Amino acid sequence: MLFIPAFKDIEAASRLISPHVHRTPVLTSKQLDAISGARLFFKCENFQKVGAFKFRGATNAVLNLTEGQRAAGVVTHSSGNHAAALAHAAVSRGVKAFIVMPSSAPEVKKRAVAGYGAEITFCEPTLAAREAAAAEVIGRTGATMIHPYDNFYIIAGQGTAAMELLEDIPDPDAVLAPVGGGGLLSGSAITIRHMAPPAKIYGAEPLLADDAARSLRTGAIQPALPPHTIADGLLTSLCERTFTVIKNNVDDILTVTEEQIIAAMTLMWTRMKIVVEPSSAVPLAAVLANRELFSGKKVAIIVSGGNADLSKLPFGQHG
Amino acid sequence: MLFIPAFKDIEAASRLISPHVHRTPVLTSKQLDAISGARLFFKCENFQKVGAFKFRGATNAVLNLTEGQRAAGVVTHSSGNHAAALAHAAVSRGVKAFIVMPSSAPEVKKRAVAGYGAEITFCEPTLAAREAAAAEVIGRTGATMIHPYDNFYIIAGQGTAAMELLEDIPDPDAVLAPVGGGGLLSGSAITIRHMAPPAKIYGAEPLLADDAARSLRTGAIQPALPPHTIADGLLTSLCERTFTVIKNNVDDILTVTEEQIIAAMTLMWTRMKIVVEPSSAVPLAAVLANRELFSGKKVAIIVSGGNADLSKLPFGQHG
Repeated sequence: MLFIPAFKDIEAASRLISPHVHRTPVLTSKQLDAISGARLFFKCENFQKVGAFKFRGATNAVLNLTEGQRAAGVVTHSSGNHAAALAHAAVSRGVKAFIVMPSSAPEVKKRAVAGYGAEITFCEPTLAAREAAAAEVIGRTGATMIHPYDNFYIIAGQGTAAMELLEDIPDPDAVLAPVGGGGLLSGSAITIRHMAPPAKIYGAEPLLADDAARSLRTGAIQPALPPHTIADGLLTSLCERTFTVIKNNVDDILTVTEEQIIAAMTLMWTRMKIVVEPSSAVPLAAVLANRELFSGKKVAIIVSGGNADLSKLPFGQHG
Repeated sequence: MLFIPAFKDIEAASRLISPHVHRTPVLTSKQLDAISGARLFFKCENFQKVGAFKFRGATNAVLNLTEGQRAAGVVTHSSGNHAAALAHAAVSRGVKAFIVMPSSAPEVKKRAVAGYGAEITFCEPTLAAREAAAAEVIGRTGATMIHPYDNFYIIAGQGTAAMELLEDIPDPDAVLAPVGGGGLLSGSAITIRHMAPPAKIYGAEPLLADDAARSLRTGAIQPALPPHTIADGLLTSLCERTFTVIKNNVDDILTVTEEQIIAAMTLMWTRMKIVVEPSSAVPLAAVLANRELFSGKKVAIIVSGGNADLSKLPFGQHG
C-alpha cells in the first residue's frame, strides 16, 4: 500500500508550516518574456529559508512527528539541500537531527549543516556506506528516517509552493518544475490538478540525468546513470511513490542540455538579478528549448533553490 | 550660481518618473541581521530597469527636456550604468541618445548600450578624448549633455529611491549609500534630511577610491587617484554641486577595504540570493566594519545596482 498525499493533505501541510516558512514572491521579467515569447511567472523558492523549497517538506515532516519520534530525533542521508533543510527544521523545533554525509562533501555544505546544529556522521561516498551509517544511527538513537522525497509528508510539504503560486497566479497554461527524485514535481502535480485542472504540467530534467524522462517513456522507473550534469540537485532517480503521481498527472518530462542550462542560468542571474542554483535554471531552459509548447502562453516556473557554489560558477573567466 | 534640488524637486521627479520606473522592493534578511547585529533594510535598485538606480535620474533628465532639446537628442560620455540608463530612458521616449564610450570598454557594455538603441561614438580611453568626442557630437547634432551626476535633474531623480525607501521604512536610525560622483548620495541626503531629519546619513566608499572621504575631511574636493578598486561604479570624484550637498548633510564617509567589499558581496549573493555589483556591497561592508555605529540600530542601505560581470567574479575557483 503506497500512501500518496491528496490535495487535502497539501492544504493541511500549508496550514501547519505557514508560520514557519517564507511565503516567497512570484517574480516576472519583461526581458525574459521578450526572449521566451511567453508570459513567465517565477515562484522564487531560492528566497525560502535554507535557500530551497526543501525546507517546506522538511518542516512538514518534523511537525508531523509523534511525541515519541520527536524525543528520539530524525535522520537522513544527503549532502544537499534536504540535509540543511531537515537540520534547520528539526533543530529549530527542538528536535535532534542526525545527518549522514559523505566525507567527500564540499566543506561549505558540511559547515552549513553543522551550523544549523545537526550531528553529522561522515561515511564513504557510496550508497551502501550511507545506508549502513544511517542504519547505525537509527540503531543507536531510534531516530526516524526522513527520506528526501520517498515520504508522504515531504511530498505534501513540497506541494505547498505550487499552492501559493496558484493563489497568486490562478490560471496558468503550464507549470514547470525541475525533477530529481520527484518530490517537488509530484507534490506540485497534486496541487495543480486540483487547483488548476486544465494546466499542463511539465517536469524539466538535464539530458545527462534523464532517468525521469526515460521512466515516463518506458512506464517503469529507470535508474539514474552515473550523472555528470551541472544541475547537481537532480541526480536522484524516482521512487514508486513519486513515479505513480508523475505518470498519472504530468504531461511530459522535457530534457535540456548542459549548454541550455548554463544559458538559462545566466539569463536569470543577469536579467532578473537573482541567484539561482543550476537545477533551478532547468525549467527556464526547457521553456526556451520548446517554444512551440509555450509561445504566447502563461507559464509558471517553480525556482527550486539558490544555493549555488560561488567558487564553481560556469560563467568563465574571460571577458 | 549652483542649482541644487530641494525636496520639492525630488517630489516632482517622483511624480514624473514613477510611471516609467520600477518601485523596487525593500528586502530584509534575518541572517544578515544576526551577522551585523543591526536591523538591515535593503532598497533593491539592482531590480530597477537597466539594473541600477541610474535609470531614475536619466528618466527625470529626459522628461525635463524642452521640445527643442528633445528633437536634438541627448549625449553623455560613460561606459557604465549611466550610459545604459540614458540610452534606455531617451530612446524609449523617442529621443535620440548619443553615447561616447572608450573603445576599451567591455564588449558586454557596448552591446547593452547599442541594444537600447543608442548611437555610440568610440574614443580613446582618456578624459580628454571623451570630452573631445562629446564636443564633436554636440557640434554636429546639437544634443544636450546629460552629465552622470553634475546635473540638477539627475540628482533630483536619484533622490527618489530614498523617498520610496522612507515611505516603506519611515524612521531609520541611519541610511547608507555608496558614493562615486555623489549623485545618489546627494539626492538621498536631500530626501532624508526632509523626511527623516534625525537619521544619520553615511556615504560608503572603497579605501582605494577614497576621494570623497578625503574631500569631506579636508573641506575641498579631492581628485580621484588612479583607482584600482573592484567597485568600478565608484571611481569618479565629486563635483561642486554634489560636494555642497554632501558636506552640509552627510554625517560621514566610511571607507572599506577590497577584502571587506568582497566579503559583503559574498554575503549578499549567498544569504540574500540577489545579484549585486561590487559597488553595491560597499555600504554593507561599511556596516560590518563599524559595528559601534550600527549595533542594535535600524539601518537602511541603498543597493545601487546589479550589473555584475559574471565573467569576472571575485569568488575564486577553488572549491
